[in-house]
Amino acid sequence: MSEQLLAEALPGQTGDPREEFLSRAEAIVGAENVIHPGAPEGYLDPYPLNAGRDRWPGVRPGSTEEVQALVRLAGETSTALWTFSRGKNLGYGGPEPRDQRMVALDLSRMNRILHVDEELCYAVIEPGVTFFDLFEHIKKRGLELWMSVPALGWGSVLGNMLDRGYGMTPLGDHAKNLCGVEVVLPDGELLRTGMGAMEGTELGPIFQGGFGPTLDGLFTQSSLGVVVNAGVWLMPAPQVYANGDIAVDDESALPALIDVLTTLRREEIIQNNALCGNVVRAATMRGARRDFWDGEGSIPEWRLEEMRQEFGLGQWNCKFALYGDRGLVERRLEIVRERVAAAVPGARVDARIYEGEDGLPIQHEDIAELDRTQMAGVPTLKPLSTIGWAAEDGGHIDAAPILPARGADVYAFYSEVKKLYAKHGFDLYIGYHLYPRHMVHVTMIFFERGNEEMLGRARALYSELLDLARSKGYAPYRSHVDYMDRIQAGFDFNGGAALRFQELLKDAVDPQGIISPGKQGVWPARLRG
Amino acid sequence: MSEQLLAEALPGQTGDPREEFLSRAEAIVGAENVIHPGAPEGYLDPYPLNAGRDRWPGVRPGSTEEVQALVRLAGETSTALWTFSRGKNLGYGGPEPRDQRMVALDLSRMNRILHVDEELCYAVIEPGVTFFDLFEHIKKRGLELWMSVPALGWGSVLGNMLDRGYGMTPLGDHAKNLCGVEVVLPDGELLRTGMGAMEGTELGPIFQGGFGPTLDGLFTQSSLGVVVNAGVWLMPAPQVYANGDIAVDDESALPALIDVLTTLRREEIIQNNALCGNVVRAATMRGARRDFWDGEGSIPEWRLEEMRQEFGLGQWNCKFALYGDRGLVERRLEIVRERVAAAVPGARVDARIYEGEDGLPIQHEDIAELDRTQMAGVPTLKPLSTIGWAAEDGGHIDAAPILPARGADVYAFYSEVKKLYAKHGFDLYIGYHLYPRHMVHVTMIFFERGNEEMLGRARALYSELLDLARSKGYAPYRSHVDYMDRIQAGFDFNGGAALRFQELLKDAVDPQGIISPGKQGVWPARLRG
Repeated sequence: MSEQLLAEALPGQTGDPREEFLSRAEAIVGAENVIHPGAPEGYLDPYPLNAGRDRWPGVRPGSTEEVQALVRLAGETSTALWTFSRGKNLGYGGPEPRDQRMVALDLSRMNRILHVDEELCYAVIEPGVTFFDLFEHIKKRGLELWMSVPALGWGSVLGNMLDRGYGMTPLGDHAKNLCGVEVVLPDGELLRTGMGAMEGTELGPIFQGGFGPTLDGLFTQSSLGVVVNAGVWLMPAPQVYANGDIAVDDESALPALIDVLTTLRREEIIQNNALCGNVVRAATMRGARRDFWDGEGSIPEWRLEEMRQEFGLGQWNCKFALYGDRGLVERRLEIVRERVAAAVPGARVDARIYEGEDGLPIQHEDIAELDRTQMAGVPTLKPLSTIGWAAEDGGHIDAAPILPARGADVYAFYSEVKKLYAKHGFDLYIGYHLYPRHMVHVTMIFFERGNEEMLGRARALYSELLDLARSKGYAPYRSHVDYMDRIQAGFDFNGGAALRFQELLKDAVDPQGIISPGKQGVWPARLRG
Repeated sequence: MSEQLLAEALPGQTGDPREEFLSRAEAIVGAENVIHPGAPEGYLDPYPLNAGRDRWPGVRPGSTEEVQALVRLAGETSTALWTFSRGKNLGYGGPEPRDQRMVALDLSRMNRILHVDEELCYAVIEPGVTFFDLFEHIKKRGLELWMSVPALGWGSVLGNMLDRGYGMTPLGDHAKNLCGVEVVLPDGELLRTGMGAMEGTELGPIFQGGFGPTLDGLFTQSSLGVVVNAGVWLMPAPQVYANGDIAVDDESALPALIDVLTTLRREEIIQNNALCGNVVRAATMRGARRDFWDGEGSIPEWRLEEMRQEFGLGQWNCKFALYGDRGLVERRLEIVRERVAAAVPGARVDARIYEGEDGLPIQHEDIAELDRTQMAGVPTLKPLSTIGWAAEDGGHIDAAPILPARGADVYAFYSEVKKLYAKHGFDLYIGYHLYPRHMVHVTMIFFERGNEEMLGRARALYSELLDLARSKGYAPYRSHVDYMDRIQAGFDFNGGAALRFQELLKDAVDPQGIISPGKQGVWPARLRG
């Protein structure tokens, strides 16, 4: 099934078959938790890439039992449900289902924090729990725990983790900190994975792995079930926290910079996923495009250089953080300074160290606001302001291909991406997230909502960006709903064996094809072209 | 299917249906790589828990294409294959299949090291590659990489990883360092998981996760396919390595000791899975039981105390390691000393620091033999000598339940396990492996091979140990082939939903039920009771 079919009916359906499901769903969740087609509170991508989409109807269960009943009803009525937790997957479609005939399964009411264990550093939570919720719960109880948060704090902790999103502390690779899920399967049965599959155990959120194949990964980027709660690992609040910046003025120093920072990651000197951004990225946090440039096309190099000097920044501006006690943090910082100075002459390294009193953990209130960021596990909505970059009524789509953590490869890709942005008249926003072996090349394409000319250019740029990435063997680690089939098609080894295998699993686990059809390009048999 | 059925024919089979498969397999792998029933080079658990087992026939493919052809032939002839890599899973059944009518699929000839990347710290290898092989390859090429090795170095790197075994460096949780697998599916098709599913990419062994559900975990402790190569992460050789010991004389100090060490793990001060063993464990490395005690039953407490003093050890003897540069390692060691002294009065901490010359990584040759251990990623066969503990012709079975990393819980379990060992007349061998949130309670039961009286007691003890663990919500993280069904039965949430789900996957992926039937208690439809 391709994007062109988006607005067509599912095969075998006439009229709006969702109405039977929706009206019967009222008996399960209450009329106030059923949103009918055309209702203004219906679901929509806040940043749609095509105009004229209708709002989706949806249901909002409040408990596992309600999810089970809804899934069984969906089976009876052959209704496709599109699952999300908070719908805040901005730049990737938000709450928007893949297909016009689907019903949104909105889990935001299931927002209980079931357990937080300070000693062993984990939580068990439902999908509706936001990063703000968990953060505030930890603060209120005075627990000495830090969590990992992504750019925006209003999203679901589980939703982000299950879509394999990232945060910026040492636990920033969120899917790695998923430990045990409870899932409503497409037939309504309840499954617990890992050690949690034993009645009366407490090992579920403690140990990753059970007996037999490890199943947690199956429920990430998945349409195989509806996760109703999961274990999430947290970290002990450190006694000392440092937040550092590295500024490099020379654009072509990027390869050396990437190589030294990822080497420091591999050696675990830098403990979090360091960020490295360009001048456009810095500018999006300081205002709108019109504040800096009012011409057509990409902001020219000379103006970016002026802006850089006005901001007092480098061409490349990195952030990293350190966690531990004073001795360890100071030594780590010395090593960072020595290595960066040796690898990138002229680089400026600046860092602030925050230490808890009397040997106790540092409190977030005692960290200067500048550094009280996602790297300290503090949820925020600050980056939301960047949405206004291209226009007051702005939106964006995100592209985040994975690259090997090798400076030369990254620079070659960067140089070509830059040309693509110029060709289509957008400003190249770059935020590199640096991991030990790979990097995430995060770019955003900012546009004006509903501006068809600009949207057309954004779609063309996005498409060419995907082609360029694929030509080098790179692929995004997650995707906007509109591009899932296309990205999946790039996984072409042995004639698409990986997709065939995923379809085999899909058909076995969800023979009626009712849960999130088309998620990541995996369609159930009844909807495959 | 229960253990009692081990020696019976598979349903619907008469005579020895393996002969057709084996004779036709000769055309695929050559006659010299087919082992027929009754042949002396056939496969057997070296430490069988029941006498009178026959050696298994087997096939030894040399390439992926041969594995594909064998799997297709197995499908045609309805022959069940039991996959292993080197067959060195000692204490868990070695190469032994679950059922007398199976054919061993021995992957030891597939022993190519396909790629080792020094910069990004990973290898791509085939299942026949042993820890010794990979270590020697790295040394020969002079690569500055360290690997993680388990107790014995002759086993398969992939076999251990896919059975979710452990090593003792910071990368000791082996399954976490698995990155991308190439698998022959039960229909003979070739699947690559993760990013490796793109033709022409190099991201396969670099990034964990592809597009859609993460599949690597499905092929651990699994009967869903035959892994023919996989990516394995390595670490950069550190500049400084320290190996430390902690000795504690008071048995009842165990809870405080466990709590302080696992706290240090959670804070990433201690970077590897520290080990904590008792006096019996120390004695097994110094001789045979008869060298210390010649009476019946468990060695009495007073004698163990004498032995402890003769050895100059504690009741509890821990080992840990540190990795980094001198400043970081020294500070880590100071913290370990301070914390242990505060938590466990009287504990003795001793450590040796090894530093590479001129700022270069430490070389294994420059580490004293005492500390040139698995914690430094050096493969060895030394622990093999412990097999002679109970008798010259000795064997053992291993039990390794997972426990939460809480001292009080561990001590309560220890006290009950101790009584069980005394009841059945065995010496309690304890080796705790300490992780941030969980611990592995490794015990071995040493016996004399073929001594039916002793084997009967070993089986009774093992069985009661499993019951005790289950009663507390604990389960082993892997298992001897004879106990797989029984342990799987303990995963009883929602009437065994986890097993039903695994069976659903098994039947979808392997409808003929030819790959490792019964692995971890998951049987294909045709063999379910």
